[in-house]
Amino acid sequence: MRFGVLGTGMVGRTIAGKLAELGHEVKMGSRSAGNEKAVEWAAGAGESASEGSFADAAKFGEVVVNATAGTASLEALETAGAENLAGKVLIEIANPLDFSQGMPPSLSVCNTDSLGEQIQRAFPEARVVKALNTVNAAVMVAPDSLTESGNVFVCGNDDEAKARVSELLETFGWLAGDVVDLGDIAAARGTEMYLPLWLRMMGALDTPQFNIRIVRAD
Amino acid sequence: MRFGVLGTGMVGRTIAGKLAELGHEVKMGSRSAGNEKAVEWAAGAGESASEGSFADAAKFGEVVVNATAGTASLEALETAGAENLAGKVLIEIANPLDFSQGMPPSLSVCNTDSLGEQIQRAFPEARVVKALNTVNAAVMVAPDSLTESGNVFVCGNDDEAKARVSELLETFGWLAGDVVDLGDIAAARGTEMYLPLWLRMMGALDTPQFNIRIVRAD
Repeated sequence: MRFGVLGTGMVGRTIAGKLAELGHEVKMGSRSAGNEKAVEWAAGAGESASEGSFADAAKFGEVVVNATAGTASLEALETAGAENLAGKVLIEIANPLDFSQGMPPSLSVCNTDSLGEQIQRAFPEARVVKALNTVNAAVMVAPDSLTESGNVFVCGNDDEAKARVSELLETFGWLAGDVVDLGDIAAARGTEMYLPLWLRMMGALDTPQFNIRIVRAD
Repeated sequence: MRFGVLGTGMVGRTIAGKLAELGHEVKMGSRSAGNEKAVEWAAGAGESASEGSFADAAKFGEVVVNATAGTASLEALETAGAENLAGKVLIEIANPLDFSQGMPPSLSVCNTDSLGEQIQRAFPEARVVKALNTVNAAVMVAPDSLTESGNVFVCGNDDEAKARVSELLETFGWLAGDVVDLGDIAAARGTEMYLPLWLRMMGALDTPQFNIRIVRAD
């Protein structure tokens, strides 16, 4: 399958690398073609890896992954072009972390709205599925690196798109029963607002290599 | 030990009941002494149980528990009286859920502030420890009702107060290693902002009887 991965940061490179490793064709997109990190990534990721502009990557992908910084995502997707996202599954991984006031970051949108919803509203023809934003990049593509299985969340308005993303997550190592469908895209408020707790847990555990597992009554 | 529990809702009654069951003296506080639910609770909870106003309960307790509705907590604590909270451990369980715009609730404070911080600022002599607000009432006092152990979080500016609350939590059934100290009271942003995710998980699981467990790399 062909994937367009928007973003050259740790998350973008990690997801793009995993997809290439799984045998997919992957084009990494950045603000302008020839981005140093994207070129370096493409050079090291095999023949199925390439790079280009946001629009190049979005056009290339049958599925598009938003791994840009949350506060820059709407602009990046605008540049990618609504026509290159229409009808496609858009896996939305970004967190709207605002570091402009220093640490800890706040969220640039929360409570009665979310980045996931903003993106779905701005690109009504994209099939937005929020996913993976509750774990760090390494855990996203290697959930089995933890000592016990944890949960990952999907939400979005398109059930078939969520089913396709869930299948993809299984190829990353997530167990089918551990992918929790939280409902429509407004649930992105929940997974994005989890970040402040995640950041404090990272501090308490002194590592970003962790996840949460739901424990039930029976 | 003597506890004052502010609030007559499910959380207040459950916590007060557990404390009485553990042999503590407990006074349940409400807006005015003689509250029907508080009287009913006190009548059924043994000789060590009593009820009164918020001020009566706060004055009575060596430790005070805020189990009022989050959006009413500051006013309730004002009524309880700063002088009745000074120097005492104040276990802050409330979530600032605002149901005024219907479902799902939003948070009346979040992102760059939290109810826990508001309370600590308003009552600087109280030793505020935010705890237990990430699970429902039944799980708070019976974490072993779940099939695996989960985590509970404490945060606050006073290390000794947090240590005392952690010990109390162990008497509720929480395992010592599962009580995670998230740091200062500003971490209440994290545990309060977790609520939208908790609510969606409740919907997906179709039960409020659950918790999360941190899974690590080793």
